[in-house]
Amino acid sequence: MQAFILIQTEVGKASAVAVQIAQITGVRSAEDVIGPYDVIVRVSADDVAPVVQEIRRVPGITRTLTCDIPEKPNTI
Amino acid sequence: MQAFILIQTEVGKASAVAVQIAQITGVRSAEDVIGPYDVIVRVSADDVAPVVQEIRRVPGITRTLTCDIPEKPNTI
Amino acid sequence: MQAFILIQTEVGKASAVAVQIAQITGVRSAEDVIGPYDVIVRVSADDVAPVVQEIRRVPGITRTLTCDIPEKPNTI
Amino acid sequence: MQAFILIQTEVGKASAVAVQIAQITGVRSAEDVIGPYDVIVRVSADDVAPVVQEIRRVPGITRTLTCDIPEKPNTI
Amino acid sequence: MQAFILIQTEVGKASAVAVQIAQITGVRSAEDVIGPYDVIVRVSADDVAPVVQEIRRVPGITRTLTCDIPEKPNTI
Amino acid sequence: MQAFILIQTEVGKASAVAVQIAQITGVRSAEDVIGPYDVIVRVSADDVAPVVQEIRRVPGITRTLTCDIPEKPNTI
Amino acid sequence: MQAFILIQTEVGKASAVAVQIAQITGVRSAEDVIGPYDVIVRVSADDVAPVVQEIRRVPGITRTLTCDIPEKPNTI
Amino acid sequence: MQAFILIQTEVGKASAVAVQIAQITGVRSAEDVIGPYDVIVRVSADDVAPVVQEIRRVPGITRTLTCDIPEKPNTI
Repeated sequence: MQAFILIQTEVGKASAVAVQIAQITGVRSAEDVIGPYDVIVRVSADDVAPVVQEIRRVPGITRTLTCDIPEKPNTI
Repeated sequence: MQAFILIQTEVGKASAVAVQIAQITGVRSAEDVIGPYDVIVRVSADDVAPVVQEIRRVPGITRTLTCDIPEKPNTI
Repeated sequence: MQAFILIQTEVGKASAVAVQIAQITGVRSAEDVIGPYDVIVRVSADDVAPVVQEIRRVPGITRTLTCDIPEKPNTI
Repeated sequence: MQAFILIQTEVGKASAVAVQIAQITGVRSAEDVIGPYDVIVRVSADDVAPVVQEIRRVPGITRTLTCDIPEKPNTI
Repeated sequence: MQAFILIQTEVGKASAVAVQIAQITGVRSAEDVIGPYDVIVRVSADDVAPVVQEIRRVPGITRTLTCDIPEKPNTI
Repeated sequence: MQAFILIQTEVGKASAVAVQIAQITGVRSAEDVIGPYDVIVRVSADDVAPVVQEIRRVPGITRTLTCDIPEKPNTI
Repeated sequence: MQAFILIQTEVGKASAVAVQIAQITGVRSAEDVIGPYDVIVRVSADDVAPVVQEIRRVPGITRTLTCDIPEKPNTI
Repeated sequence: MQAFILIQTEVGKASAVAVQIAQITGVRSAEDVIGPYDVIVRVSADDVAPVVQEIRRVPGITRTLTCDIPEKPNTI
């Protein structure tokens, strides 16, 4: 299963949160961004839910939104 | 420069929109997703703005939000 | 009368808030969730408003949205 | 796995959408509501994602948001 | 019981929707406005829910949000 | 000129904020509510802007949205 | 009085809407943009409300949000 | 390149944030406003991204949204 996790953090914490999330098993990429969200994470794992729960334990996160990627190979 | 583009589409158009966007120069990945957005695109180009303008010409798109990725190598 | 109450809480408080809400008379279920909301409550009472007011007194809640369920037996 | 699915529909379609969703395997309840969403669904299945994909095929739906319920028995 | 109902309408329909809502029993005022909402209604009735359901039957409405006014005389 | 002001407050401050706002010249009503907003104010004055600025000085307010009521007598 | 008006339009109409708004008396600038809004207008007039009402008559607009600029010379 | 930056700040900080932003190279105007945002900035520079990053370092900012202005002279 794959998903993007859109994350809002406390002000100024995005970069540190992204670095911590990048260490979590199942996380393929974690980047701090500028816009309506502060970190965008790409997850790839047998089950996304436990990875999201581990991500949510990283201090500084205020909101997470999961965007599941349906099982369809349309990336290039 | 790199950015994520969060896209909302007309109902039922996400998959077709993602396939079309994937053909655009500067687009590294384009995936239809389930959640507050319908397609999430990763752009990598000297200048993101013209790539976004080309993306917005794909029929079926109703809203695009750009999340710039600041110049910092924190992806794994 | 029946309603769902969508609740946002302070970071990390969802689970404790759900347990406290579950004790309130008129509450049929109270579960912490992951997504745009932190707790989703099902209320069933002669009058929903006083139950909502009691829910709002639980510490840690930052926002409540009431979704009334019109008088129609369409659940399975 | 369990989740709430918050659904927005085309104007006036909520009730019909709820009735159709109620037939889908894995759906425990589906109720049209009044508020920021039009239908609130409770899903209980080994894997939530395919149930959500089937729900999204019901005509009249404009947006779905998944709220996963973490594996924890805190409902009454 | 009293409540404000915040209403979004199809483009250009706010004024006609407000006039129709103003006729409904239980409605104290209905005004088209300019901003994130198109009509703001004040309801005063033994039970707000049936008044809201009647309001929602007025053609041209796309979204209604109920803001209950708790039983407390704090208006001037 | 007339307008509704939709106000969000810090948690638990709605009632006190409404009472303070009710004292401001130009304010016709100020009520704490339950929902996406915490206080809804009705303003009637030659110029709404200065009344809004005075409202915003009340401690505990986090966000104000102005909904102008166009010059048209459609209330009952 | 001065204000920014944030405008959402029907898909593909932003540029035409901006050109039409630019002709309206009291409008200092009107530019189509890419993001959560489609056109951002700067108004400068004795009274902003009638200018906004004229703007809203331009076909293709779906939502307008007014951001009043309080009377204070802080622009460069 | 040109863009509007829509900024939300901590309560009461808008005016001070606007004054600080106005000093940053590439910023053409920075005004505190009343509404869904607290400061609206106009940027004009070869590359908008570094200007946005410098803006985000001003203390008191909680959220920034970039609205790129496509290369088209439609301002008056």
